[in-house]
Amino acid sequence: MIQLVGLDADDTLWHNEPLFTSRREQFCAMLARYEPNGVAEEILYATEMRNLRHFGYGVKGFVLSMIETAIDMTEGRLQSSDVRTIIEWGREMLAGPIRLLDGVAEAVESLARDYPVILVTKGDLLDQETKLARSGLGHLFKAIEIVSDKNADVYRRLIERYGVPAEKFVMVGNSLRSDILPAVHAGAHAVHVPYEMSWAHELVPPEALADVRYHEISHIRDLPGLLQTLRAV
Amino acid sequence: MIQLVGLDADDTLWHNEPLFTSRREQFCAMLARYEPNGVAEEILYATEMRNLRHFGYGVKGFVLSMIETAIDMTEGRLQSSDVRTIIEWGREMLAGPIRLLDGVAEAVESLARDYPVILVTKGDLLDQETKLARSGLGHLFKAIEIVSDKNADVYRRLIERYGVPAEKFVMVGNSLRSDILPAVHAGAHAVHVPYEMSWAHELVPPEALADVRYHEISHIRDLPGLLQTLRAV
Repeated sequence: MIQLVGLDADDTLWHNEPLFTSRREQFCAMLARYEPNGVAEEILYATEMRNLRHFGYGVKGFVLSMIETAIDMTEGRLQSSDVRTIIEWGREMLAGPIRLLDGVAEAVESLARDYPVILVTKGDLLDQETKLARSGLGHLFKAIEIVSDKNADVYRRLIERYGVPAEKFVMVGNSLRSDILPAVHAGAHAVHVPYEMSWAHELVPPEALADVRYHEISHIRDLPGLLQTLRAV
Repeated sequence: MIQLVGLDADDTLWHNEPLFTSRREQFCAMLARYEPNGVAEEILYATEMRNLRHFGYGVKGFVLSMIETAIDMTEGRLQSSDVRTIIEWGREMLAGPIRLLDGVAEAVESLARDYPVILVTKGDLLDQETKLARSGLGHLFKAIEIVSDKNADVYRRLIERYGVPAEKFVMVGNSLRSDILPAVHAGAHAVHVPYEMSWAHELVPPEALADVRYHEISHIRDLPGLLQTLRAV
Protein backbone atom coordinates (compact mmCIF):
# COMPACT_ATOMS: atom_id res chain seq x y z
CA MET A 1 0.00 0.00 0.00
CA ILE A 2 1.41 3.37 -1.09
CA GLN A 3 2.05 5.78 1.81
CA LEU A 4 3.54 8.78 0.00
CA VAL A 5 3.13 10.10 -3.55
CA GLY A 6 5.75 12.31 -5.20
CA LEU A 7 4.69 14.33 -8.23
CA ASP A 8 7.03 16.05 -10.65
CA ALA A 9 5.90 19.55 -11.68
CA ASP A 10 7.14 20.77 -15.08
CA ASP A 11 5.47 18.88 -17.95
CA THR A 12 3.76 16.57 -15.47
CA LEU A 13 1.35 19.05 -13.85
CA TRP A 14 1.76 22.04 -16.16
CA HIS A 15 3.18 22.82 -19.60
CA ASN A 16 6.80 23.91 -19.39
CA GLU A 17 9.02 22.60 -22.18
CA PRO A 18 7.01 24.44 -24.88
CA LEU A 19 8.00 27.74 -23.19
CA PHE A 20 11.67 26.82 -23.56
CA THR A 21 11.23 25.42 -27.06
CA SER A 22 9.54 28.55 -28.37
CA ARG A 23 12.24 30.76 -26.78
CA ARG A 24 14.93 28.59 -28.36
CA GLU A 25 13.26 29.14 -31.73
CA GLN A 26 13.08 32.89 -31.18
CA PHE A 27 16.71 32.85 -30.10
CA CYS A 28 17.78 31.04 -33.28
CA ALA A 29 15.81 33.53 -35.38
CA MET A 30 17.51 36.42 -33.56
CA LEU A 31 20.97 35.00 -34.20
CA ALA A 32 20.20 34.22 -37.84
CA ARG A 33 20.23 38.00 -38.39
CA TYR A 34 23.92 37.99 -37.48
CA GLU A 35 24.97 34.57 -38.68
CA PRO A 36 22.66 33.05 -41.31
CA ASN A 37 24.61 29.79 -41.46
CA GLY A 38 25.01 29.43 -37.71
CA VAL A 39 23.90 26.45 -35.69
CA ALA A 40 22.66 28.41 -32.69
CA GLU A 41 20.61 25.56 -31.28
CA GLU A 42 23.54 23.14 -31.00
CA ILE A 43 25.84 25.80 -29.55
CA LEU A 44 23.18 26.88 -27.06
CA TYR A 45 22.72 23.29 -25.91
CA ALA A 46 26.48 22.84 -25.49
CA THR A 47 26.65 26.09 -23.49
CA GLU A 48 23.74 25.00 -21.29
CA MET A 49 25.41 21.67 -20.57
CA ARG A 50 28.73 23.36 -19.74
CA ASN A 51 26.99 25.84 -17.43
CA LEU A 52 24.79 23.30 -15.66
CA ARG A 53 27.23 22.66 -12.82
CA HIS A 54 27.52 26.40 -12.13
CA PHE A 55 24.02 27.67 -12.89
CA GLY A 56 21.88 24.60 -12.23
CA TYR A 57 18.48 24.03 -13.84
CA GLY A 58 15.97 26.77 -14.43
CA VAL A 59 15.13 29.95 -16.29
CA LYS A 60 17.94 32.17 -14.98
CA GLY A 61 20.65 29.76 -16.09
CA PHE A 62 18.88 29.36 -19.44
CA VAL A 63 18.89 33.14 -19.95
CA LEU A 64 22.57 33.42 -19.04
CA SER A 65 23.42 30.59 -21.44
CA MET A 66 21.47 32.29 -24.26
CA ILE A 67 23.33 35.56 -23.68
CA GLU A 68 26.67 33.79 -23.60
CA THR A 69 25.91 31.83 -26.78
CA ALA A 70 24.84 35.02 -28.55
CA ILE A 71 28.08 36.79 -27.58
CA ASP A 72 30.17 33.80 -28.71
CA MET A 73 28.43 33.50 -32.07
CA THR A 74 28.42 37.18 -33.01
CA GLU A 75 32.03 37.98 -32.14
CA GLY A 76 31.47 41.43 -30.71
CA ARG A 77 28.64 42.47 -33.04
CA LEU A 78 25.79 41.61 -30.65
CA GLN A 79 23.55 44.62 -30.01
CA SER A 80 22.72 45.31 -26.41
CA SER A 81 19.05 45.66 -27.37
CA ASP A 82 19.13 41.95 -28.21
CA VAL A 83 20.61 41.14 -24.80
CA ARG A 84 17.79 43.13 -23.26
CA THR A 85 15.26 41.14 -25.31
CA ILE A 86 16.72 37.85 -24.02
CA ILE A 87 16.45 39.05 -20.41
CA GLU A 88 12.88 40.13 -21.09
CA TRP A 89 12.08 36.62 -22.36
CA GLY A 90 13.36 35.28 -19.06
CA ARG A 91 11.20 37.62 -17.04
CA GLU A 92 8.14 36.61 -19.09
CA MET A 93 8.92 32.92 -18.56
CA LEU A 94 9.12 33.54 -14.80
CA ALA A 95 5.92 35.56 -14.59
CA GLY A 96 3.67 34.01 -17.24
CA PRO A 97 0.44 32.14 -16.58
CA ILE A 98 0.57 28.48 -15.59
CA ARG A 99 -1.25 26.17 -18.00
CA LEU A 100 -2.25 22.96 -16.24
CA LEU A 101 -2.24 19.77 -18.29
CA ASP A 102 -5.64 18.29 -19.02
CA GLY A 103 -7.10 16.41 -16.04
CA VAL A 104 -4.39 17.43 -13.57
CA ALA A 105 -6.57 19.33 -11.11
CA GLU A 106 -9.02 16.41 -10.79
CA ALA A 107 -6.26 13.79 -10.52
CA VAL A 108 -4.30 15.67 -7.83
CA GLU A 109 -7.48 16.38 -5.86
CA SER A 110 -8.33 12.70 -5.95
CA LEU A 111 -4.80 11.66 -4.90
CA ALA A 112 -4.72 14.19 -2.06
CA ARG A 113 -7.85 12.61 -0.55
CA ASP A 114 -6.12 9.21 -0.27
CA TYR A 115 -2.42 9.92 0.26
CA PRO A 116 0.00 12.59 1.43
CA VAL A 117 1.21 14.12 -1.85
CA ILE A 118 4.48 16.02 -2.22
CA LEU A 119 5.87 18.01 -5.14
CA VAL A 120 9.39 16.98 -6.17
CA THR A 121 10.99 19.29 -8.70
CA LYS A 122 14.27 20.82 -9.77
CA GLY A 123 14.95 24.31 -11.08
CA ASP A 124 15.10 27.74 -9.52
CA LEU A 125 13.71 27.78 -5.98
CA LEU A 126 11.64 30.97 -6.19
CA ASP A 127 10.40 30.15 -9.69
CA GLN A 128 9.09 26.72 -8.71
CA GLU A 129 7.43 28.09 -5.57
CA THR A 130 5.64 30.85 -7.43
CA LYS A 131 4.57 28.46 -10.19
CA LEU A 132 2.93 26.20 -7.62
CA ALA A 133 1.24 29.22 -6.06
CA ARG A 134 0.00 30.42 -9.46
CA SER A 135 -1.18 26.90 -10.36
CA GLY A 136 -3.87 26.99 -7.67
CA LEU A 137 -2.84 23.46 -6.58
CA GLY A 138 -0.62 24.48 -3.65
CA HIS A 139 -3.15 23.52 -0.95
CA LEU A 140 -3.20 19.91 -2.17
CA PHE A 141 0.47 19.30 -1.40
CA LYS A 142 1.77 18.32 2.00
CA ALA A 143 5.22 19.66 1.09
CA ILE A 144 7.31 21.02 -1.76
CA GLU A 145 10.74 19.51 -2.32
CA ILE A 146 12.83 21.61 -4.68
CA VAL A 147 16.13 19.86 -5.33
CA SER A 148 19.17 20.86 -7.36
CA ASP A 149 19.21 17.50 -9.15
CA LYS A 150 17.15 14.31 -9.16
CA ASN A 151 19.40 11.32 -8.66
CA ALA A 152 18.99 8.12 -6.65
CA ASP A 153 20.75 9.59 -3.58
CA VAL A 154 18.44 12.57 -3.54
CA TYR A 155 15.39 10.25 -3.67
CA ARG A 156 16.85 8.02 -0.95
CA ARG A 157 17.37 10.97 1.41
CA LEU A 158 13.94 12.35 0.63
CA ILE A 159 12.16 9.04 1.28
CA GLU A 160 14.13 8.59 4.50
CA ARG A 161 13.22 12.07 5.71
CA TYR A 162 9.52 11.27 5.39
CA GLY A 163 9.99 8.04 7.36
CA VAL A 164 8.38 5.89 4.68
CA PRO A 165 9.80 2.57 3.40
CA ALA A 166 11.10 3.06 -0.16
CA GLU A 167 8.67 0.48 -1.55
CA LYS A 168 5.73 2.51 -0.21
CA PHE A 169 6.78 5.66 -2.06
CA VAL A 170 5.82 6.25 -5.67
CA MET A 171 7.32 8.93 -7.92
CA VAL A 172 5.28 10.17 -10.86
CA GLY A 173 6.64 12.26 -13.73
CA ASN A 174 7.34 12.75 -17.39
CA SER A 175 11.13 12.36 -17.31
CA LEU A 176 12.66 8.90 -17.49
CA ARG A 177 16.03 10.39 -16.54
CA SER A 178 14.90 12.47 -13.55
CA ASP A 179 11.66 10.93 -12.27
CA ILE A 180 11.71 7.24 -13.16
CA LEU A 181 15.23 5.77 -13.25
CA PRO A 182 16.62 7.35 -10.06
CA ALA A 183 13.41 6.67 -8.09
CA VAL A 184 13.47 2.99 -9.13
CA HIS A 185 17.17 2.82 -8.24
CA ALA A 186 16.26 4.17 -4.81
CA GLY A 187 13.85 1.26 -4.37
CA ALA A 188 10.62 3.15 -4.99
CA HIS A 189 7.78 2.66 -7.44
CA ALA A 190 7.69 4.96 -10.45
CA VAL A 191 4.98 5.94 -12.88
CA HIS A 192 5.92 7.50 -16.20
CA VAL A 193 3.43 9.88 -17.77
CA PRO A 194 5.08 10.88 -21.07
CA TYR A 195 4.76 14.48 -22.23
CA GLU A 196 4.47 15.55 -25.85
CA MET A 197 8.08 16.77 -26.00
CA SER A 198 11.30 16.39 -23.99
CA TRP A 199 14.42 18.50 -23.53
CA ALA A 200 17.34 16.56 -25.04
CA HIS A 201 19.01 16.47 -21.61
CA GLU A 202 16.11 14.49 -20.13
CA LEU A 203 16.33 11.63 -22.65
CA VAL A 204 17.92 8.30 -21.75
CA PRO A 205 19.35 5.62 -24.05
CA PRO A 206 17.05 2.57 -24.32
CA GLU A 207 19.65 0.27 -22.75
CA ALA A 208 19.44 2.28 -19.52
CA LEU A 209 15.86 1.05 -19.19
CA ALA A 210 16.66 -2.64 -19.52
CA ASP A 211 15.50 -4.48 -16.37
CA VAL A 212 14.02 -1.31 -14.91
CA ARG A 213 10.50 -1.99 -13.67
CA TYR A 214 8.14 0.96 -13.75
CA HIS A 215 4.61 1.77 -14.83
CA GLU A 216 3.58 3.87 -17.77
CA ILE A 217 0.24 5.60 -18.27
CA SER A 218 -0.71 7.87 -21.12
CA HIS A 219 -2.81 10.25 -19.03
CA ILE A 220 -2.61 11.44 -15.44
CA ARG A 221 -6.33 10.73 -15.02
CA ASP A 222 -5.36 7.04 -14.83
CA LEU A 223 -3.00 7.63 -11.89
CA PRO A 224 -5.42 7.27 -8.93
CA GLY A 225 -6.68 3.96 -10.31
CA LEU A 226 -3.17 2.67 -10.90
CA LEU A 227 -2.09 3.55 -7.34
CA GLN A 228 -5.03 1.50 -6.02
CA THR A 229 -3.64 -1.55 -7.80
CA LEU A 230 -0.20 -0.92 -6.23
CA ARG A 231 -1.84 -1.66 -2.88
CA ALA A 232 -1.48 -5.33 -3.66
CA VAL A 233 2.24 -5.20 -4.48
CA MET B 1 16.73 23.93 26.82
CA ILE B 2 17.47 24.47 23.12
CA GLN B 3 16.49 21.49 20.94
CA LEU B 4 17.39 22.77 17.46
CA VAL B 5 19.94 25.32 16.23
CA GLY B 6 19.54 27.12 12.91
CA LEU B 7 22.63 28.75 11.42
CA ASP B 8 22.63 31.27 8.60
CA ALA B 9 25.38 30.70 6.02
CA ASP B 10 26.54 33.79 4.08
CA ASP B 11 28.49 36.19 6.30
CA THR B 12 27.73 34.04 9.34
CA LEU B 13 29.80 30.95 8.47
CA TRP B 14 31.77 32.24 5.48
CA HIS B 15 32.61 35.57 3.86
CA ASN B 16 30.11 36.48 1.16
CA GLU B 17 29.20 40.16 1.03
CA PRO B 18 32.80 41.20 0.16
CA LEU B 19 32.49 39.13 -3.06
CA PHE B 20 29.44 41.14 -4.05
CA THR B 21 30.92 44.45 -2.89
CA SER B 22 34.09 44.01 -4.91
CA ARG B 23 32.07 43.02 -8.00
CA ARG B 24 29.86 46.08 -7.53
CA GLU B 25 33.01 48.23 -7.48
CA GLN B 26 34.36 46.57 -10.63
CA PHE B 27 30.98 47.06 -12.25
CA CYS B 28 30.97 50.78 -11.44
CA ALA B 29 34.50 51.11 -12.83
CA MET B 30 33.41 49.35 -16.02
CA LEU B 31 30.44 51.66 -16.49
CA ALA B 32 32.51 54.76 -15.73
CA ARG B 33 34.23 54.14 -19.08
CA TYR B 34 30.88 54.79 -20.80
CA GLU B 35 29.30 57.25 -18.40
CA PRO B 36 31.79 59.09 -16.18
CA ASN B 37 29.06 60.93 -14.29
CA GLY B 38 26.81 57.91 -13.86
CA VAL B 39 25.51 56.62 -10.56
CA ALA B 40 25.83 52.95 -11.45
CA GLU B 41 25.65 51.74 -7.86
CA GLU B 42 22.28 53.36 -7.15
CA ILE B 43 20.82 52.21 -10.46
CA LEU B 44 22.11 48.68 -9.93
CA TYR B 45 20.52 48.55 -6.48
CA ALA B 46 17.20 49.79 -7.87
CA THR B 47 17.36 47.16 -10.63
CA GLU B 48 18.16 44.42 -8.10
CA MET B 49 15.19 45.42 -5.95
CA ARG B 50 12.85 45.51 -8.94
CA ASN B 51 14.06 42.08 -10.09
CA LEU B 52 13.94 40.42 -6.68
CA ARG B 53 10.41 39.09 -7.06
CA HIS B 54 11.30 37.48 -10.41
CA PHE B 55 14.90 36.41 -9.90
CA GLY B 56 15.10 35.92 -6.12
CA TYR B 57 18.32 36.17 -4.12
CA GLY B 58 21.65 34.88 -5.35
CA VAL B 59 24.42 35.24 -7.86
CA LYS B 60 22.45 34.53 -11.05
CA GLY B 61 19.92 37.28 -10.34
CA PHE B 62 22.77 39.64 -9.42
CA VAL B 63 24.48 38.96 -12.76
CA LEU B 64 21.26 39.52 -14.70
CA SER B 65 20.66 42.78 -12.83
CA MET B 66 24.20 43.98 -13.59
CA ILE B 67 23.74 43.23 -17.29
CA GLU B 68 20.38 44.99 -17.36
CA THR B 69 21.76 48.04 -15.53
CA ALA B 70 24.69 48.24 -17.93
CA ILE B 71 22.38 48.13 -20.95
CA ASP B 72 20.12 50.81 -19.46
CA MET B 73 22.98 53.17 -18.61
CA THR B 74 24.87 52.89 -21.90
CA GLU B 75 21.93 53.30 -24.26
CA GLY B 76 23.04 50.83 -26.91
CA ARG B 77 26.78 51.44 -26.62
CA LEU B 78 27.54 48.49 -24.32
CA GLN B 79 30.17 46.18 -25.82
CA SER B 80 29.34 42.51 -25.73
CA SER B 81 32.81 41.81 -24.34
CA ASP B 82 31.72 43.66 -21.19
CA VAL B 83 28.59 41.51 -20.95
CA ARG B 84 30.85 38.47 -21.20
CA THR B 85 33.03 39.86 -18.39
CA ILE B 86 29.99 40.28 -16.13
CA ILE B 87 28.91 36.66 -16.77
CA GLU B 88 32.47 35.54 -16.03
CA TRP B 89 32.34 37.39 -12.68
CA GLY B 90 29.22 35.40 -11.86
CA ARG B 91 30.85 32.10 -12.72
CA GLU B 92 33.83 32.99 -10.51
CA MET B 93 31.53 33.93 -7.64
CA LEU B 94 29.80 30.54 -7.99
CA ALA B 95 33.01 28.49 -8.18
CA GLY B 96 35.45 30.39 -5.96
CA PRO B 97 36.94 29.10 -2.72
CA ILE B 98 34.93 29.37 0.50
CA ARG B 99 36.63 31.44 3.18
CA LEU B 100 35.28 30.47 6.61
CA LEU B 101 35.05 33.21 9.23
CA ASP B 102 37.49 32.95 12.09
CA GLY B 103 36.46 30.33 14.68
CA VAL B 104 33.53 28.94 12.68
CA ALA B 105 34.79 25.37 12.27
CA GLU B 106 35.42 24.99 16.02
CA ALA B 107 32.11 26.63 16.97
CA VAL B 108 30.00 24.49 14.63
CA GLU B 109 31.81 21.31 15.70
CA SER B 110 31.08 22.15 19.30
CA LEU B 111 27.41 22.93 18.59
CA ALA B 112 26.96 19.74 16.56
CA ARG B 113 28.04 17.66 19.56
CA ASP B 114 25.24 19.10 21.73
CA TYR B 115 22.36 19.89 19.36
CA PRO B 116 20.94 19.03 15.97
CA VAL B 117 22.19 21.90 13.78
CA ILE B 118 20.54 22.93 10.51
CA LEU B 119 21.64 25.44 7.89
CA VAL B 120 18.97 28.00 7.00
CA THR B 121 19.86 30.15 4.02
CA LYS B 122 18.39 31.91 1.01
CA GLY B 123 19.85 32.30 -2.45
CA ASP B 124 20.32 29.98 -5.39
CA LEU B 125 19.70 26.34 -4.48
CA LEU B 126 22.67 24.77 -6.27
CA ASP B 127 25.02 27.59 -5.24
CA GLN B 128 24.25 27.22 -1.54
CA GLU B 129 24.54 23.43 -1.69
CA THR B 130 27.93 23.53 -3.37
CA LYS B 131 29.17 26.23 -0.99
CA LEU B 132 28.33 24.02 1.97
CA ALA B 133 30.07 21.09 0.28
CA ARG B 134 33.15 23.21 -0.45
CA SER B 135 33.16 24.58 3.12
CA GLY B 136 33.99 21.18 4.56
CA LEU B 137 31.29 21.66 7.22
CA GLY B 138 28.54 19.70 5.50
CA HIS B 139 28.83 16.62 7.76
CA LEU B 140 28.06 18.74 10.85
CA PHE B 141 24.56 19.68 9.67
CA LYS B 142 21.52 17.51 10.15
CA ALA B 143 19.78 19.25 7.23
CA ILE B 144 20.05 22.16 4.82
CA GLU B 145 17.04 24.43 4.45
CA ILE B 146 17.36 26.68 1.43
CA VAL B 147 14.42 29.06 1.30
CA SER B 148 13.41 31.71 -1.20
CA ASP B 149 12.92 34.29 1.57
CA LYS B 150 13.31 34.44 5.33
CA ASN B 151 10.14 35.76 6.91
CA ALA B 152 8.23 34.80 10.06
CA ASP B 153 5.94 32.39 8.16
CA VAL B 154 8.91 30.56 6.70
CA TYR B 155 10.45 30.16 10.17
CA ARG B 156 7.11 29.02 11.63
CA ARG B 157 6.71 26.31 8.98
CA LEU B 158 10.33 25.23 9.38
CA ILE B 159 10.11 24.94 13.17
CA GLU B 160 6.83 23.05 12.86
CA ARG B 161 8.31 20.61 10.36
CA TYR B 162 11.05 19.67 12.81
CA GLY B 163 8.48 19.08 15.55
CA VAL B 164 10.19 21.43 18.00
CA PRO B 165 8.40 24.09 20.11
CA ALA B 166 9.31 27.54 18.79
CA GLU B 167 10.88 28.57 22.10
CA LYS B 168 13.31 25.66 21.85
CA PHE B 169 14.62 26.76 18.45
CA VAL B 170 17.35 29.36 18.12
CA MET B 171 18.31 31.12 14.88
CA VAL B 172 21.82 32.50 14.55
CA GLY B 173 22.95 34.91 11.87
CA ASN B 174 24.35 38.25 10.79
CA SER B 175 21.20 39.77 9.31
CA LEU B 176 18.74 41.56 11.59
CA ARG B 177 16.24 41.60 8.72
CA SER B 178 16.47 37.93 7.70
CA ASP B 179 17.79 36.00 10.70
CA ILE B 180 16.74 37.89 13.82
CA LEU B 181 13.46 39.79 13.41
CA PRO B 182 11.44 37.07 11.61
CA ALA B 183 12.73 34.31 13.90
CA VAL B 184 11.77 36.32 16.99
CA HIS B 185 8.36 37.04 15.43
CA ALA B 186 7.94 33.30 14.97
CA GLY B 187 8.48 32.83 18.73
CA ALA B 188 12.06 31.55 18.56
CA HIS B 189 15.28 32.72 20.16
CA ALA B 190 17.70 34.63 17.96
CA VAL B 191 21.39 35.40 18.23
CA HIS B 192 22.85 38.21 16.16
CA VAL B 193 26.51 37.90 15.16
CA PRO B 194 27.20 41.12 13.22
CA TYR B 195 29.40 40.95 10.15
CA GLU B 196 31.78 43.68 9.06
CA MET B 197 29.50 44.85 6.24
CA SER B 198 25.86 44.45 5.16
CA TRP B 199 24.02 44.66 1.87
CA ALA B 200 21.68 47.69 2.04
CA HIS B 201 18.70 45.37 1.56
CA GLU B 202 19.48 43.54 4.82
CA LEU B 203 19.41 46.66 7.00
CA VAL B 204 16.42 47.48 9.22
CA PRO B 205 15.40 50.84 10.68
CA PRO B 206 16.15 51.08 14.43
CA GLU B 207 12.46 51.42 15.30
CA ALA B 208 11.83 47.92 13.92
CA LEU B 209 13.99 46.60 16.75
CA ALA B 210 12.08 48.28 19.56
CA ASP B 211 10.78 45.64 21.98
CA VAL B 212 12.45 42.84 20.03
CA ARG B 213 14.35 40.58 22.42
CA TYR B 214 17.39 38.86 20.99
CA HIS B 215 21.00 38.18 21.90
CA GLU B 216 24.04 39.72 20.33
CA ILE B 217 27.57 38.33 20.40
CA SER B 218 30.57 39.78 18.64
CA HIS B 219 32.13 36.44 17.75
CA ILE B 220 30.70 33.04 16.90
CA ARG B 221 33.13 31.42 19.34
CA ASP B 222 30.85 32.72 22.12
CA LEU B 223 27.82 30.91 20.70
CA PRO B 224 28.13 27.49 22.40
CA GLY B 225 28.50 29.18 25.81
CA LEU B 226 25.53 31.44 25.18
CA LEU B 227 23.30 28.51 24.17
CA GLN B 228 24.17 26.78 27.46
CA THR B 229 22.72 29.77 29.30
CA LEU B 230 19.52 29.56 27.24
CA ARG B 231 18.89 26.20 28.91
CA ALA B 232 17.48 28.06 31.85
CA VAL B 233 15.03 30.17 29.86
